[in-house]
Amino acid sequence: MSLAVRPEDIDAAADRIAGHVARTPLLRCPRLDERVGGTVLLKAECLQVTGSFKLRGATNAIRSLPEGTKGVVAYSSGNHAQAVALAATRAGYPSVIVMPADAPRAKRDRTAAYGAEVILYDRLKESREAIGEAISEERGFALVPPFDFGPTIAGQGTVGLEAAAQAQAMGFAPDQALVCCSGGGLAAGTGLALKRAFPDSALVTVEPQGFDDTARSLASGERCTNDPGARSICDALLVNGPGALTLPILRSLDASGVAVADDEAVGAVRYAAEELRVVLEPGGAVALAAVLCGRVETKGKVTIVVLSGGNTDMETFAAAMRQGQ
Amino acid sequence: MSLAVRPEDIDAAADRIAGHVARTPLLRCPRLDERVGGTVLLKAECLQVTGSFKLRGATNAIRSLPEGTKGVVAYSSGNHAQAVALAATRAGYPSVIVMPADAPRAKRDRTAAYGAEVILYDRLKESREAIGEAISEERGFALVPPFDFGPTIAGQGTVGLEAAAQAQAMGFAPDQALVCCSGGGLAAGTGLALKRAFPDSALVTVEPQGFDDTARSLASGERCTNDPGARSICDALLVNGPGALTLPILRSLDASGVAVADDEAVGAVRYAAEELRVVLEPGGAVALAAVLCGRVETKGKVTIVVLSGGNTDMETFAAAMRQGQ
Repeated sequence: MSLAVRPEDIDAAADRIAGHVARTPLLRCPRLDERVGGTVLLKAECLQVTGSFKLRGATNAIRSLPEGTKGVVAYSSGNHAQAVALAATRAGYPSVIVMPADAPRAKRDRTAAYGAEVILYDRLKESREAIGEAISEERGFALVPPFDFGPTIAGQGTVGLEAAAQAQAMGFAPDQALVCCSGGGLAAGTGLALKRAFPDSALVTVEPQGFDDTARSLASGERCTNDPGARSICDALLVNGPGALTLPILRSLDASGVAVADDEAVGAVRYAAEELRVVLEPGGAVALAAVLCGRVETKGKVTIVVLSGGNTDMETFAAAMRQGQ
Repeated sequence: MSLAVRPEDIDAAADRIAGHVARTPLLRCPRLDERVGGTVLLKAECLQVTGSFKLRGATNAIRSLPEGTKGVVAYSSGNHAQAVALAATRAGYPSVIVMPADAPRAKRDRTAAYGAEVILYDRLKESREAIGEAISEERGFALVPPFDFGPTIAGQGTVGLEAAAQAQAMGFAPDQALVCCSGGGLAAGTGLALKRAFPDSALVTVEPQGFDDTARSLASGERCTNDPGARSICDALLVNGPGALTLPILRSLDASGVAVADDEAVGAVRYAAEELRVVLEPGGAVALAAVLCGRVETKGKVTIVVLSGGNTDMETFAAAMRQGQ
């Protein structure tokens, strides 16, 4: 079966989005290296414009639209929302974003500030896909899917392309990459780029406990979903099952998955503020949490960790800072 | 009168410290640009290894020491302390750091963790210079001054060298640079590099109110000091007067100075967490505070802002997050 994205699509995405997204740093922290007894290279996508990696996929998808497109529509818990709003405004398109009513206020406010019309829905009762598709049909706007879409995956893959080049420039050959995972667009794209550069490296997805559908799908060979009653503080990672396009890519890369508890994610948010001087949201901190809690072996290894986003309400963030003191 | 540092010394410093310090990103924030009606380029030295720009000067000074040096000694409120400790350990030297007893605990603990012997003193009653010099004499260790020393200034100047190259790569010619200022090493070095690249740009030092000795010295033409009773939350910026080497450099660059209040610095710490996703200490946020509070005209201009450090106690940081909510 052919996959939805090839590494060459990621090269093309990198050219397409150059100048429209930031080249984020690959951070090092001597105290973290000492703690784990290995080398950890932290790809700080929380420093991406709009506060998450999502601007990459949104920009690639929107700048791949055919001429004559009237506008764009997207559904998202918040990070894809902001990314599509800004990428659309910059490319000259109107945008409509369908967001859960319980998304952090900061994410909603910023989505509107980037120029989008925001429509709220009930995450537990309504289907965001159905609402998004209805708007797409009514207004003739192009839908920009958050993960299960080739141009989105290819755009997110530029995280891996950059990280590979940065690791090489530092003289490192990564043994493994840990990537925060919800629908799997970031993990699939990043994995494709990293495995091309470092064929022997391992790809590990990291999810919140209760939302480890990708880990279970990779382990079982069947597409798994989550208990509808599951809850997590990681609002960016609450998708109910891996994508039809992303899961085959992850399988082709021999990926495996691990999960972390909410308090471990919050501990990683605090650690990142104190030791790395970056602000993460809980969902953006799960890959770091997996390292800090020993979910994967890092001793003697070179590990790339993606810090995927930092859009958090300051109340949630301040609470994380106080916790564990 | 010849100056202590020439732009070529900064080029040499960049070569000497390459691979030992991080190339920090020059961040952009569309919401900040919109707020000020101009372009703001933020040099995020809070993401430097050890959490501040000080690793640059310390590394350059230590890697310039003559063969046969037995060890190094430094005095510092905390950021230079950590930088000298790590740079010395990495270069194979023992180190002794003289720190004020009221320095943030995080800074003291980390200085020790980076391999230094820490000696505490009373900032209001004792002279750190005298203590440092006594240790230097007793043990035969080389003193690494925090700012009034050519190799230190040249090392800090690599902040300006990098920022100039990054701004050029983005297609910008900065109109001005705002630099956090205490003894003036960062401002002098950064100013030298930036003015070589952009001769028409203006250099503005930013200090805490009550510690605006550099601003007053530049305005009056006399070397000014501060009221001994002055206090500020900006623990990194409490030096009592500009340096004998740094002030002539700042004058040669036609620098001017502004000052911000403590609550404005704290507001900038909060803004940086929320909008830029970086953790700053109050002293590392004063240049951003000057922009946010309109201390300098930024409308229609391209402004480089140095975010100089992010070593803060989590208690202080969490308090800043809560303030103004």
